[in-house]
Amino acid sequence: MAQMASKSLTSAAILLLLLLDWSATPTVARVRNRHRPCKRMVFYFHDILYNEHNAKNATAAIVGAPAWGNTTILAGQNHFGNVVVFDDPITLDNNLHSPAVGRAQGFYLYDKKDVFTAWLGFSFVFNSSEHKGSINFAGADPLMNKTREISVIGGTGEFFMARGVATLMTDAFEGEVYFRLRADIRLYECW
Amino acid sequence: MAQMASKSLTSAAILLLLLLDWSATPTVARVRNRHRPCKRMVFYFHDILYNEHNAKNATAAIVGAPAWGNTTILAGQNHFGNVVVFDDPITLDNNLHSPAVGRAQGFYLYDKKDVFTAWLGFSFVFNSSEHKGSINFAGADPLMNKTREISVIGGTGEFFMARGVATLMTDAFEGEVYFRLRADIRLYECW
Amino acid sequence: MAQMASKSLTSAAILLLLLLDWSATPTVARVRNRHRPCKRMVFYFHDILYNEHNAKNATAAIVGAPAWGNTTILAGQNHFGNVVVFDDPITLDNNLHSPAVGRAQGFYLYDKKDVFTAWLGFSFVFNSSEHKGSINFAGADPLMNKTREISVIGGTGEFFMARGVATLMTDAFEGEVYFRLRADIRLYECW
Repeated sequence: MAQMASKSLTSAAILLLLLLDWSATPTVARVRNRHRPCKRMVFYFHDILYNEHNAKNATAAIVGAPAWGNTTILAGQNHFGNVVVFDDPITLDNNLHSPAVGRAQGFYLYDKKDVFTAWLGFSFVFNSSEHKGSINFAGADPLMNKTREISVIGGTGEFFMARGVATLMTDAFEGEVYFRLRADIRLYECW
Repeated sequence: MAQMASKSLTSAAILLLLLLDWSATPTVARVRNRHRPCKRMVFYFHDILYNEHNAKNATAAIVGAPAWGNTTILAGQNHFGNVVVFDDPITLDNNLHSPAVGRAQGFYLYDKKDVFTAWLGFSFVFNSSEHKGSINFAGADPLMNKTREISVIGGTGEFFMARGVATLMTDAFEGEVYFRLRADIRLYECW
Repeated sequence: MAQMASKSLTSAAILLLLLLDWSATPTVARVRNRHRPCKRMVFYFHDILYNEHNAKNATAAIVGAPAWGNTTILAGQNHFGNVVVFDDPITLDNNLHSPAVGRAQGFYLYDKKDVFTAWLGFSFVFNSSEHKGSINFAGADPLMNKTREISVIGGTGEFFMARGVATLMTDAFEGEVYFRLRADIRLYECW
């Protein structure tokens, strides 16, 4: 009995050796759990779109437009075809004037003619005492929905190799100039 | 002998505890297999590019162009520099008039002067009885090749945290106005 | 004692069965190690921006600009809002005239008013004796920093399902026309 146990034990040990790479430390096999993120953070970011009258405060500008539009005013047909580049302050609460803990940088484009819908490619870039590193995002943003989800596709520094999901919510807006977004970031892969 | 077995067994158990995180359920270590996707789906999507005469039917529009081009007609030099935003219907078969099961939304840009080649950033967005959620894609599309592969970089809802590869094929085209693409999506990470 | 060992052994075996998927081969549980990439490669790529006088040599062109700019010359305010599409040769050393082993294809956009900062979405596309396949990148590029990190968000062919980080360094530049970037790519997920 003991011998059989010992034999099976050898097999188990070999399997473990296959599973783990002993030559390096620390080495931990990845474990996944869709019900419990390994990291969760909530931030707000503030988008002020350039409109010819707010050059000083604007954090975003239209840089692409369809044949029926231009780069000064958002186009008709629910802004279909407008491309916007942004560098928005990130704050911990919903106050535009709170100290920025980072910048949301990248672009969005409006991509539907019959309803406001956007596609996002951007990063949260942190270089503060709270966070150092970046989180990269991509995904569809059907912005008329109360909440919508985009993907965390990677990260650097503190967020090295991160993956996850961010839930966006339009927390406030003023006309077509100011948009405040709430981002509830849940990482499910943390290294 | 039994004692030795018991001792090694303890080590094995500790290793397993390191491997798995017992405090949460369900917790399953990730297993990978490049020869067997965990999910495979085939879709078609239909791109109708705005050309001044098809405002009603167009699903895509030129929104960026190089100095030698404009947003009404695709530029010379294999459209190098043209950026196109799209909101294309997704169908289960190759018929443009089949019921759409979702929308392909995002952008492509032509990025080579001496041959048609594009770069894609887009999502498949589903909200039907068949599928609910989104799949996010990015990658190079050397569209003169019969087939080419792009990355699935994330997903939400039913496709939470998905990763994989999609093989694109130009199934049909008419001039420079209509393009039908076949997407064979293979996910290798499913949560 | 032996019996107890045998019993625990059974539990261990069941756990191993949960860890591994026996019905397919090869099946290896993923192991991660942030201190040792599974693949590391260094490349250079060369960006020559179109400026009306270099049509023949240019590998990149401005395709988007804010209201205060145009697609011929990079805009003021640190080029905020300029979108550039590129198809740059990739070389193994820092010589523009070395044989290209692939092409860096995609876009960058300048996204900050008070300092040069960009956001990148592009691929390394290889089809040579050295490498066949593509690597897809996304991330913020604060290009005034000596080094900065972006994410490897996926890959195809030889780089199937790759994830990792790339450190970019501006190796040389001439005015606002020629930029040579060094990319130190470290993959931490290899299939």
